[in-house]
Amino acid sequence: MTYTLILLRHGQSDWNQKNLFTGWYDVTLTEQGRREAIRGGELLAEAGLLPDVLHTSVLKRATITANLALEAADRTWIPVSRSWRLNERHYGALQGKDKAQTLAEYGEEQFMQWRRSYDTPPPPLDDDSEFSQAHDPRYAELGADAPRTECLKDVLERMLPYWEDEIKPDLAAGKTVLVAAHGNSLRALVKHLDGISDEDIAGLNIPTGIPLVYELDEDFRPVARGGRYLDPSAAEESIKAVASQGRH
Amino acid sequence: MTYTLILLRHGQSDWNQKNLFTGWYDVTLTEQGRREAIRGGELLAEAGLLPDVLHTSVLKRATITANLALEAADRTWIPVSRSWRLNERHYGALQGKDKAQTLAEYGEEQFMQWRRSYDTPPPPLDDDSEFSQAHDPRYAELGADAPRTECLKDVLERMLPYWEDEIKPDLAAGKTVLVAAHGNSLRALVKHLDGISDEDIAGLNIPTGIPLVYELDEDFRPVARGGRYLDPSAAEESIKAVASQGRH
Repeated sequence: MTYTLILLRHGQSDWNQKNLFTGWYDVTLTEQGRREAIRGGELLAEAGLLPDVLHTSVLKRATITANLALEAADRTWIPVSRSWRLNERHYGALQGKDKAQTLAEYGEEQFMQWRRSYDTPPPPLDDDSEFSQAHDPRYAELGADAPRTECLKDVLERMLPYWEDEIKPDLAAGKTVLVAAHGNSLRALVKHLDGISDEDIAGLNIPTGIPLVYELDEDFRPVARGGRYLDPSAAEESIKAVASQGRH
Repeated sequence: MTYTLILLRHGQSDWNQKNLFTGWYDVTLTEQGRREAIRGGELLAEAGLLPDVLHTSVLKRATITANLALEAADRTWIPVSRSWRLNERHYGALQGKDKAQTLAEYGEEQFMQWRRSYDTPPPPLDDDSEFSQAHDPRYAELGADAPRTECLKDVLERMLPYWEDEIKPDLAAGKTVLVAAHGNSLRALVKHLDGISDEDIAGLNIPTGIPLVYELDEDFRPVARGGRYLDPSAAEESIKAVASQGRH
C-alpha cells in the first residue's frame, strides 16, 4: 500500500516570460502557460493518475493551472483546498525587478545568494510598494504576520503545517492528491520528502507544467527518491531552461 | 446589515444546444456557454460584487462556469465547496432523450408534467443505461441512496440541508457567496427563498450565465422578492428562450 502524491508547478506566467521576480505578486499565465497546464492534465489522464483532491496556493497562476489541468483530465468535480502556505516564496524587495538587471546591478554572488541561499532572504518589500500584498484582502487573516520577504527556509516552515494538517490526512485516507503550486513551495516540499540537505537543495529545479509523481510509503517516505516526471525528457529540457534564468 | 447571495446558472452546454434532457449526465459547455460564463464574471466585476466563497455542484458545466467566471472577475483564489446536493435535477429515464421527440412521443400533458410538475418524477433510469451515474465514483458515498430520478420537490429536499449547513453559515459570517449551479437546483433555492408555491414555481425560469443577486435580511429573507439580475434585459430574453424549449 502506497500513497500517491502529484506535484504540479504552474505553467509559464507573464512575469516568467518577462524575466521578472514575481513572488507573491499575482500575475496570470501566458498562452504558453495555459497550454502547459492543459498538457499537464492530459499527461495525468494518459497515465491513469486521477486526482481525488486538489490543493493549491492562492495565486492565480497556480489556481488557473489547476483548473485547466483538471478540465483536461475531466476531474473538475473534485474537492479543492487553497492556502497561502502553498504560495511562491515572497521575494521581498526583488518583487517586480528584472532578473537580468538585478544580476548586472548586484553581481553574481549576491544574485545567487538571493536566488538560491537556503536561509538568507532578500531585503523586505515596503508595504507602500506597488508590488506589495500588505493590503491584499486574501491575506487579511495573517495581519502583521504576513511575510514581507522569505528565504526557502521560511517557505518550508510555513508550508510544513499545511503538509502535516491538510495534505497528509488526505493521503492517509487513500486519496490521490494533486498539489498545484510554485517553484519554491514545491522545492521546499521535495526537500522535506527526499531529505535533501540545505546545501544540495540549491541545485534542484522543478519544471513547469509537468506532473511529478511521488509514491510514498506508510511513513510518507518516497518509495523512489526524487519521484518521477510523467514526461521525463520534457522535464529535463525545462530544468535546464529554468537553471539559466537571468543569464540571457 | 444584509447578506449577499449570488446565483449563477451555468452557460449553454452541449446538450442544451442539442435539446436533450441532461440531468446528472456530465456534459461540458459549448463555446457559447464558455463566453456566457466569462460574461457572468465580467458582470460581477463591473458591479463590484466580488464573491468571498464559491459553492458548486459536482457537474462540469457548473464547475467550469464557476472557473471561467471567477477568472474573469479575478477571484480564482477564493475557497470552493462542491456538492452533489447542488446538482441539476436527476431526469430519470428521460436523460439522454431528445426534448422535441419526447414531446411528440408522449404528448403535451405528459411532457409538461415531467418538466414542470412539482412532485411527479419521470420513471427511474436503469442502472445499466449509458446515461446512468450508478457507477460514477463521485457518488460512491451515496450508495443505494443515489437518486435514479427526481422531481423538483426531491431536488429541494436534498438541496436544503446544504443550504442550511454550508451556505447559510458563510452568509452569516458576512461573506459574499456565489452559488454556481443548475436550472432546477437554483429554482428550488429560489422557491425556498421567495416562498413560491408548488404551483407557481412551474412558471419560473432562470437564464444561463447572468448573475442573480439576492440581498437577504438577518432571517435570510430576500429584501426584494425575486432578487435582481445584473443584466435585466438579457435575462428577460433568455427566460423566453428557456421557456420555449422542446417546442421547436
